[in-house]
Amino acid sequence: MTNEKLKNLFSPGSIAVIGASNSFDKLGYHVMKSLAGNYQGKIFPINPKAEKIWGIDAYRSLKEVPEQVDLAVIVVPASLVAETVHACGRKAVKGIVLITAGFREIEDAKGEVLEHELRAMADRYGLPIVGPNTFGYVNLTLGINASFTSEFCQIEKGGVALISQSGGMCHLCGFLAIDERVAMSKLMSLGNRCNVDFPEMLRYLVEADEATRVIALYIEGLDAPRDLIETAASLRGKKPIIAYKAGRSEKGDSASRFHTGSLAGNHDIWTGALRQAGILQVESADELLDTAKALDACALPGGPRVAVLSGQAGPGMIASDALERVKLQLSRFAAATQEKINNLLPPIAIRTNPVDMGPAWYNPKAMLEILQAAVEDEGTDGVIFLAMYASANLKLAEELEKYMKALEPFRKPVIACFTAPPGIWDESIKRLDRQKGVVILATPERTAKAMGNLWKARLLWGEKR
Amino acid sequence: MTNEKLKNLFSPGSIAVIGASNSFDKLGYHVMKSLAGNYQGKIFPINPKAEKIWGIDAYRSLKEVPEQVDLAVIVVPASLVAETVHACGRKAVKGIVLITAGFREIEDAKGEVLEHELRAMADRYGLPIVGPNTFGYVNLTLGINASFTSEFCQIEKGGVALISQSGGMCHLCGFLAIDERVAMSKLMSLGNRCNVDFPEMLRYLVEADEATRVIALYIEGLDAPRDLIETAASLRGKKPIIAYKAGRSEKGDSASRFHTGSLAGNHDIWTGALRQAGILQVESADELLDTAKALDACALPGGPRVAVLSGQAGPGMIASDALERVKLQLSRFAAATQEKINNLLPPIAIRTNPVDMGPAWYNPKAMLEILQAAVEDEGTDGVIFLAMYASANLKLAEELEKYMKALEPFRKPVIACFTAPPGIWDESIKRLDRQKGVVILATPERTAKAMGNLWKARLLWGEKR
Repeated sequence: MTNEKLKNLFSPGSIAVIGASNSFDKLGYHVMKSLAGNYQGKIFPINPKAEKIWGIDAYRSLKEVPEQVDLAVIVVPASLVAETVHACGRKAVKGIVLITAGFREIEDAKGEVLEHELRAMADRYGLPIVGPNTFGYVNLTLGINASFTSEFCQIEKGGVALISQSGGMCHLCGFLAIDERVAMSKLMSLGNRCNVDFPEMLRYLVEADEATRVIALYIEGLDAPRDLIETAASLRGKKPIIAYKAGRSEKGDSASRFHTGSLAGNHDIWTGALRQAGILQVESADELLDTAKALDACALPGGPRVAVLSGQAGPGMIASDALERVKLQLSRFAAATQEKINNLLPPIAIRTNPVDMGPAWYNPKAMLEILQAAVEDEGTDGVIFLAMYASANLKLAEELEKYMKALEPFRKPVIACFTAPPGIWDESIKRLDRQKGVVILATPERTAKAMGNLWKARLLWGEKR
Repeated sequence: MTNEKLKNLFSPGSIAVIGASNSFDKLGYHVMKSLAGNYQGKIFPINPKAEKIWGIDAYRSLKEVPEQVDLAVIVVPASLVAETVHACGRKAVKGIVLITAGFREIEDAKGEVLEHELRAMADRYGLPIVGPNTFGYVNLTLGINASFTSEFCQIEKGGVALISQSGGMCHLCGFLAIDERVAMSKLMSLGNRCNVDFPEMLRYLVEADEATRVIALYIEGLDAPRDLIETAASLRGKKPIIAYKAGRSEKGDSASRFHTGSLAGNHDIWTGALRQAGILQVESADELLDTAKALDACALPGGPRVAVLSGQAGPGMIASDALERVKLQLSRFAAATQEKINNLLPPIAIRTNPVDMGPAWYNPKAMLEILQAAVEDEGTDGVIFLAMYASANLKLAEELEKYMKALEPFRKPVIACFTAPPGIWDESIKRLDRQKGVVILATPERTAKAMGNLWKARLLWGEKR
């Protein structure tokens, strides 16, 4: 599978939806909903009976479409897939998203046979096929949602590509990404991986997909894990690659075999192999998203020494504790830095690290000057910046945003947690997030965990390109 | 400090706000905002100049108020606190919330002197004083928000009391509680703990506050930790008590001393002491809230054997992994249970534990029957139930809610993660949360962590009363 073929797969000028439907209960309805009104190219709904689907002229079959079709999204029953793929081959489509399930993931031997046939057809026509047994893909860069989940259009456009072996995990992470403002380039579930699997996706995303700056993988189990490991190793350091590997438990392992047809394998062996391939391993969906977001927006720290600056002392303490848990250190400020901070805070304040900015609470400009001083400190490699706002101090939050605008982008990582009640400061937090290389995460503990992973990333990959 | 005095402090029939203000920039404005329109009793704004504050008749001083004042919320400058407390004593108020800062938490020796005076006055008048240096308290049971953060009124009324040594952590946890539907009875920051400290609060909440079913503590450092430990030990098993202890790192420790005037102390000693006192220790704000929520709504498991039921296989795998991390086991179903499940799922499904309910996806009734079978299974002590919804399967989500209504409350813990895009299913998730003893948490990993803590709780306290 070449990068060029994958590029075509992800940037179609026209899309046919084979099995498009006007009935809410059909996946073909929801695929149309995902595309109609969002996708800028031509859409050809294919349905033997309907005249129009989602207000768009429908065709009885693919061959009746009078124009070139670049991508076919297939949602017909498994028994009709073979003839449908043949029709796609004859029509010279450039790629297929095969949502239909019922292939090698089922216990019945028939599924394995069907999948074998499918591969043969894909080879014959030189066709990249995403799936079968996938919800599809979303290319946020180009505004293409080739999936049955229209809400993925709400994810912000950005640099993180999430490639998942599970549709459920893609949904979980995609929904969390909307809430937590993780900006993405692509989101896809590989499903049974007919001929689009982790290795070719990795190569394509690293070498040929400019919009992707960070690659996040969710892996259950692979038939040929060595291919993934060797591909990742050959691409090491070009773009950050992080992975959440499931199947730690014995039972989880056997579940994986049935889910997408591959054994999860021994967890410790996987951990070692991922490390050797230069893939950063994470242990939860939250950590996968936080780390990807921070890797996309922040510089990498040159060392493990972190400054914690907090508008309220308590959150500063727990961030300090959490840093210790991920083996980072609280930095010791150089004399000049300490003097600057001392000039910005009254003597009653805790001015060493963690810094309690409480006494500067009514002076957001001073808080940002403390931030700048900490970032510029020679003994500090990264900064955690915390503030909890409510309506009583909303003006201060707005001033913080105003002063932030005037700053230069930070050349060291700054990970923030700004908390406010729902609805109170949402738009402002949205604007502040990733401005000047500052990422905003949900809790103080999560800022520390993400900082720990940025440092691990630096050790794995060296300086960020 | 008697339970009766604390009961009066938390259930005033009238409240004076000393330092009430019409100016947005004053905390006295925000305290009035928190009370006005929410509090059912009489409010007396005290301000030497204003006629009306928030539309309510103001008084120039407390002594001019012609009626009984039960609670005084004080937001005047530190230099005026002494005379204000005297005035409260003379007026025979029953309790004080002293928001003003500038006491022993400041480096200046003057602060220590002021605080000493304050204690003497409190003793003289037999007055319970929350603070100084606190944002106040919220009694959600009675709809009293005696704090400068009006948004705390958005927290749902329920059984969790959060007592915090840090106002910042109270804000963080309070805002997370709104988002994550943690229903609370009380929320308060002890501040400098003039004469309302952890031990008396614990005793009051366990013995005299019926609305509180679970007590969550955020602790930094105490002058007399033994008092807390001995009080908790004497109350052991009566109501669940959980604690998040900060100050693990050496630097965090010294920060604590300045923050609220006490050393955090050695973390390992604290861990041992908390365990001996029967307090369940947690390690993050998320875990504190999740665990409190689950303890409030769920039965405790009789053992460590858990069934994982998932509408999508991937999330089921990661929940299984996460269970292993907290030393729980995947249960092995009894033959009769397995047969029931086999009858509800086609042979193509993974029907052992973790159960992939995917093939029953279009039959929410069957999914709930599988849930019931798992809960009733003799080899299963608790159940994790996972499903990711989007607009394509919203009807299924609605059916799930319908069938859930018809069920009996579960007598084993059921912890669920139902995820959907923002706005898609919010109201329904809100209604489902804590129905029938099922709690809904944010991610599969967090369901496993909470289940692990329910099992730890059972080991600490025995069966739930």
